[in-house]
Amino acid sequence: MEFPRRTKISSHTINILPRYAETDKGGVIHHSVFSIWFEMGRTELLRANGVAYKDLEAAGVFFVVAQLNIKFRRPVQYDEQLLLDTTCSAVSAAKVEHVYKLTRCSDSVILAEGASVLACVNEKGKVRRMPEFMYPEHE
Amino acid sequence: MEFPRRTKISSHTINILPRYAETDKGGVIHHSVFSIWFEMGRTELLRANGVAYKDLEAAGVFFVVAQLNIKFRRPVQYDEQLLLDTTCSAVSAAKVEHVYKLTRCSDSVILAEGASVLACVNEKGKVRRMPEFMYPEHE
Amino acid sequence: MEFPRRTKISSHTINILPRYAETDKGGVIHHSVFSIWFEMGRTELLRANGVAYKDLEAAGVFFVVAQLNIKFRRPVQYDEQLLLDTTCSAVSAAKVEHVYKLTRCSDSVILAEGASVLACVNEKGKVRRMPEFMYPEHE
Amino acid sequence: MEFPRRTKISSHTINILPRYAETDKGGVIHHSVFSIWFEMGRTELLRANGVAYKDLEAAGVFFVVAQLNIKFRRPVQYDEQLLLDTTCSAVSAAKVEHVYKLTRCSDSVILAEGASVLACVNEKGKVRRMPEFMYPEHE
Repeated sequence: MEFPRRTKISSHTINILPRYAETDKGGVIHHSVFSIWFEMGRTELLRANGVAYKDLEAAGVFFVVAQLNIKFRRPVQYDEQLLLDTTCSAVSAAKVEHVYKLTRCSDSVILAEGASVLACVNEKGKVRRMPEFMYPEHE
Repeated sequence: MEFPRRTKISSHTINILPRYAETDKGGVIHHSVFSIWFEMGRTELLRANGVAYKDLEAAGVFFVVAQLNIKFRRPVQYDEQLLLDTTCSAVSAAKVEHVYKLTRCSDSVILAEGASVLACVNEKGKVRRMPEFMYPEHE
Repeated sequence: MEFPRRTKISSHTINILPRYAETDKGGVIHHSVFSIWFEMGRTELLRANGVAYKDLEAAGVFFVVAQLNIKFRRPVQYDEQLLLDTTCSAVSAAKVEHVYKLTRCSDSVILAEGASVLACVNEKGKVRRMPEFMYPEHE
Repeated sequence: MEFPRRTKISSHTINILPRYAETDKGGVIHHSVFSIWFEMGRTELLRANGVAYKDLEAAGVFFVVAQLNIKFRRPVQYDEQLLLDTTCSAVSAAKVEHVYKLTRCSDSVILAEGASVLACVNEKGKVRRMPEFMYPEHE
């Protein structure tokens, strides 16, 4: 597997349609689901840069979530069209940071915001250096 | 890891308290959760026989679900005490079968019933012979 | 909310991309996830017929899963493109039946098959008559 | 439903045994699961104070997560005994704050820490005053 030299795209947007199984008896999406969507956002940002996360894992590079912060601004309804913006906000030898913004398509209202810090580990879970291509091109 | 010679206990009951995150906007437990509970039932039946499933996996023995049937008789409410009976109903070189009965503690009403067939595979996912100890003692 | 007179489309196919959170330590998709995908298949089959399930619920029509059967033929890998065919196979005053076929896009191999029976209930969970439009046009 | 006058217990510990379905292909518990455990911690802290959350909801009092922060210190393994400490750290008319500490039973190592802010809303999702009993006794 060959990886790109540098990351060219720092921000990416995906569509999300909340599933019935993701709701709870409060009638809206359960708060644990947002972190799953954020992970999907990271995966697609990576893919937009030419890297499939499964290929990274196959090459012995694993990203593990070290920190996660979420602000839930408004309830998210079942089956309403959403946009999730994922931006890589910082990269260092030890960690990569992302910020997230979840908006409702119909009126662009922000429903949630988040931030995460990921560490890079090998197949044994030991911290390893960030792969070179994770750094943005113009740094 | 040493495993027992034979399985002595064919049936085991566990307590389950449905979680908020397991509900859906219909107000009750989502139907996908039952298969997670059945898996917990199998794990505890195995443990009652002296085997931790994680030790099995560490020894290269994996059980994969090949077939699953569930009859949902009544809705299951959030935070109501449940009993799950898990019974190993058949064992062969190729597969192990279980049946499940989920009842409400308060009135012993049956809420769901199920059955599963599991195959035994190695760490590469190839079918392998059922470990000897999975057979019941009096067979 | 106005619903169509009759169902015109009995079969519908959706794309599925398995999420990282849907995997388990066995390295493949956890078997509980398939029922969530089947539910998505039903939702999109309904939508292809001009009905959003959320509008049905808003009108006091709820579908609850009464029976579910799944045959897991092959393991499903993280991030591999899948197709899910959902077919409405029978409708009566009391219940609606669907069958499912999950295939891998790359080689059209069938990974899983399933069937479900759903009952129709009102907002209090009482069984009610199937809405007229759920019947196929040529019956 | 009658609720207690004041909250007497500010901290509570529960046992958690990670489920197989909660693991991911990285071999450990998926990070989205921690928020589900934290919710269980809050529920049992509330129950230790004589209040079942389902009774609160039945009385029109809903708690919604407004903010969530988690630090994942070490990977959590399948089927290892855990302790989750949940402490109510602040209560005001508008919100209630909790902090969480997840430790491994075998060696008391801290695996994760977290904090949450919850708002109190009515059945329509409108913010409402915190119920009187949520305030600690000696305030």
